[in-house]
Amino acid sequence: MRVQFSPTGLVLSGQGPIASALGFIDAVLRGVGQVMLQNNSYAGLLFLAGVFYNSTLFGVGVLVGAATSTATARLLAVDSDQLRAGLFGFNGALVAVGLLYFLQPGALTWACVVFAAACSTVVMAAMLNLMSVWRMPVLTAPFVFTTLAVFLATARFGRLQSTDLLPSAGLPHGVAVEGVVTASTVVEGLFSGVAQVFFQASPVTGGLFLVGLLISSRSAAAAALAGSLIGLLVAWGMGAAEPAIRSGAFGFNSVLTAIALASVFLRPSVASLTYAGLATMATTVVFAAVSAALAPVGMPAMTLPFVLVVWVFVLAAPLFPRISRAED
Amino acid sequence: MRVQFSPTGLVLSGQGPIASALGFIDAVLRGVGQVMLQNNSYAGLLFLAGVFYNSTLFGVGVLVGAATSTATARLLAVDSDQLRAGLFGFNGALVAVGLLYFLQPGALTWACVVFAAACSTVVMAAMLNLMSVWRMPVLTAPFVFTTLAVFLATARFGRLQSTDLLPSAGLPHGVAVEGVVTASTVVEGLFSGVAQVFFQASPVTGGLFLVGLLISSRSAAAAALAGSLIGLLVAWGMGAAEPAIRSGAFGFNSVLTAIALASVFLRPSVASLTYAGLATMATTVVFAAVSAALAPVGMPAMTLPFVLVVWVFVLAAPLFPRISRAED
Amino acid sequence: MRVQFSPTGLVLSGQGPIASALGFIDAVLRGVGQVMLQNNSYAGLLFLAGVFYNSTLFGVGVLVGAATSTATARLLAVDSDQLRAGLFGFNGALVAVGLLYFLQPGALTWACVVFAAACSTVVMAAMLNLMSVWRMPVLTAPFVFTTLAVFLATARFGRLQSTDLLPSAGLPHGVAVEGVVTASTVVEGLFSGVAQVFFQASPVTGGLFLVGLLISSRSAAAAALAGSLIGLLVAWGMGAAEPAIRSGAFGFNSVLTAIALASVFLRPSVASLTYAGLATMATTVVFAAVSAALAPVGMPAMTLPFVLVVWVFVLAAPLFPRISRAED
Repeated sequence: MRVQFSPTGLVLSGQGPIASALGFIDAVLRGVGQVMLQNNSYAGLLFLAGVFYNSTLFGVGVLVGAATSTATARLLAVDSDQLRAGLFGFNGALVAVGLLYFLQPGALTWACVVFAAACSTVVMAAMLNLMSVWRMPVLTAPFVFTTLAVFLATARFGRLQSTDLLPSAGLPHGVAVEGVVTASTVVEGLFSGVAQVFFQASPVTGGLFLVGLLISSRSAAAAALAGSLIGLLVAWGMGAAEPAIRSGAFGFNSVLTAIALASVFLRPSVASLTYAGLATMATTVVFAAVSAALAPVGMPAMTLPFVLVVWVFVLAAPLFPRISRAED
Repeated sequence: MRVQFSPTGLVLSGQGPIASALGFIDAVLRGVGQVMLQNNSYAGLLFLAGVFYNSTLFGVGVLVGAATSTATARLLAVDSDQLRAGLFGFNGALVAVGLLYFLQPGALTWACVVFAAACSTVVMAAMLNLMSVWRMPVLTAPFVFTTLAVFLATARFGRLQSTDLLPSAGLPHGVAVEGVVTASTVVEGLFSGVAQVFFQASPVTGGLFLVGLLISSRSAAAAALAGSLIGLLVAWGMGAAEPAIRSGAFGFNSVLTAIALASVFLRPSVASLTYAGLATMATTVVFAAVSAALAPVGMPAMTLPFVLVVWVFVLAAPLFPRISRAED
Repeated sequence: MRVQFSPTGLVLSGQGPIASALGFIDAVLRGVGQVMLQNNSYAGLLFLAGVFYNSTLFGVGVLVGAATSTATARLLAVDSDQLRAGLFGFNGALVAVGLLYFLQPGALTWACVVFAAACSTVVMAAMLNLMSVWRMPVLTAPFVFTTLAVFLATARFGRLQSTDLLPSAGLPHGVAVEGVVTASTVVEGLFSGVAQVFFQASPVTGGLFLVGLLISSRSAAAAALAGSLIGLLVAWGMGAAEPAIRSGAFGFNSVLTAIALASVFLRPSVASLTYAGLATMATTVVFAAVSAALAPVGMPAMTLPFVLVVWVFVLAAPLFPRISRAED
């Protein structure tokens, strides 16, 4: 292995775990540099120094965010030139520092940082594909959209508390988690989540829908049940209100995302099922976000969260060699 | 004629009214199945059973919605493979059940169900064209956008009453229709509607604009007058406030849509004039919706409704063999 | 030179300043005609008469707006057929009349009219490029987006006062300019504007970021400083609150726009630096607008203004022969 210092950062030749680790660190630093559009490790290092000078918390956040989104991109096997240039690091870095700035620190916030930074890589890939038609740069749009989704979701999730830095408390926010989730909440919510696809909050209707799915496709029926369960568990873990969980409100979008990605649009594999699982979890957060965003005009979210998340994950797929679209 | 049952539904060979009717029913059921992404009549039948189990009203709604949007697609002669797969049914089904869930039942609501389900077919075609660039599925986006437009419009239309199920009354909603429309309202509104294109609420200015149009294009002048009239009548029928009708507020977007579709972008024919008329009616509803949606930030709708509706109807045209674009 | 009157306006042959001036006047009148989709000078003249009949102020506005946006397009050397057809006039005309209708008249409002009409030409070019993929007309979308940005910005800029015609005062609006800008505001704001890219309101951190930029690219460092200064000065001139200026809130988006356009995506030239300067000024207004638009849901603007403005200016570039993209 040979390591050289070029004017923009490391140049590595050779293979092996040390080369891989050094290459990763270089990509993360370039990712920090790309926040100001510089494909340059030294600039990234100085930006990092600047952040650490002001706040250790944010400095750690920048590192964790850039490392998470870069690692996600590597796991999904994106183009190595783009990876090395830090193109999958800068949105993760900004997502992390944004969340840590506006949310109370704590285990759930850090979990959100890691989850959102990973999702920002999928949004980045989707937008690279979308904007390639016009040869347009994606810029920091994935950071903005991902962060907005989490911020808006705080209005529905009692365990996610914002700092008082978010401008004007436009949305009411319960300080406590409303109601207690019991076994009957889970069973009812599981089936009602499927029924709510047609606006029906009835577990029996949900059961009939599952039979219909089973006739058509076993994988679709399994995905629907798994999607309803994931939606319910994520909502519960984030502190959603019990009546909303019971009614299946946090389920129907996740049901549709799971069917779409785990049984219709992607070719089944461990990687694509994991990918579909990530999307299904994200759908629950996006449901909370869309539902909060539409509150000032008094509108329901309907299936918009499902539509948005599936668009992003389908659009991103061609940039991830491990994820194949069904018709390819 | 031969009828066979395949694992996903009917397979028909032969022609004639009975084959046509059976094919239509099969397409409608597949449309219901497509709500959960299943191109399968039996799944559709079970989904329908599930909805009827919970509510006869919603069951009837699903059938009316899916049938209306499928029939609209057939009238507009869309690709028969997509029609048979139920791709023009699922958004109509959801539009119907969504409207019946959030609006008080009644003749006007059912009229809106039929109108919105028909429009959802145009939105579907527009989005199929839009997203074909990335080979992306449209999903239930046409349902979401169409339904949101009608819900938002309730804030401006006194005869359209929502149930109390819409989340948080973000928008104030008059319970009564404001003012009485007289002949002078109609005459003033008709000409002011044309004048409002330039923000001028003056009937004389509207008259001068019509003379200008007449010099340039007789069809444009006729379309402008017809557009202003349609906008005014739809607003009146839905229960808009009299001062708004008189000022031409409900006219100028319809004027522009009518000029654009009836005299500029489409080749004239009975089909395309009917199509332009549908778009002009939709523009009035979209004006009410955009104007309500922008109320929380205190912004006027300007000509955004015209822009959105004409984009949708022009974008959809290539999928409808009966509608030709002017330059083709 | 020969001048002929065709059924739609002037036909000019020959060169020289008089032909050029007559051609410009004809393009401006066609631009007024294009407000109702008529490529016809006589229609434009009658529309103008209609507006003047109702109000001299608006009549002058229509002329100034159409002339400014047409002249901007000419300076940027857009396709002469589109220019002559009035395609770069109608949005400017509407921007002017829209701003004069909803904002108190005065020197700053007229400056906004000219600035926004010029920007509408860039938005028009961007959308022509964007929508060419589907051969879709742009319609009056550039007018709507440009005007909305200025209206929304009034909520943050104390010197920009709306008339009471904007619907429902959704956004609180300070009637006075808050705080006094001093030398320390300017120095602190200048460096904090750079630091705010990472959510850090520290001038020292901003200094470290500038050193990082300097290591990577001298033009990027210069652009960052210039961007922060432009953002600060525009905000100050428009009457933004002093604490917001000091914190760098009006700087970080302008910093990023300046780096992106003056040192990354465009090939340097006097024209492209002027273009980048226009974009940087627009970014400050768009920051105020986005920040106000997100207030009802209590969300921060983050770097969305930078993303939106750079997208528009990069997307428009291929239609302006004087502006070359870096990789072309």
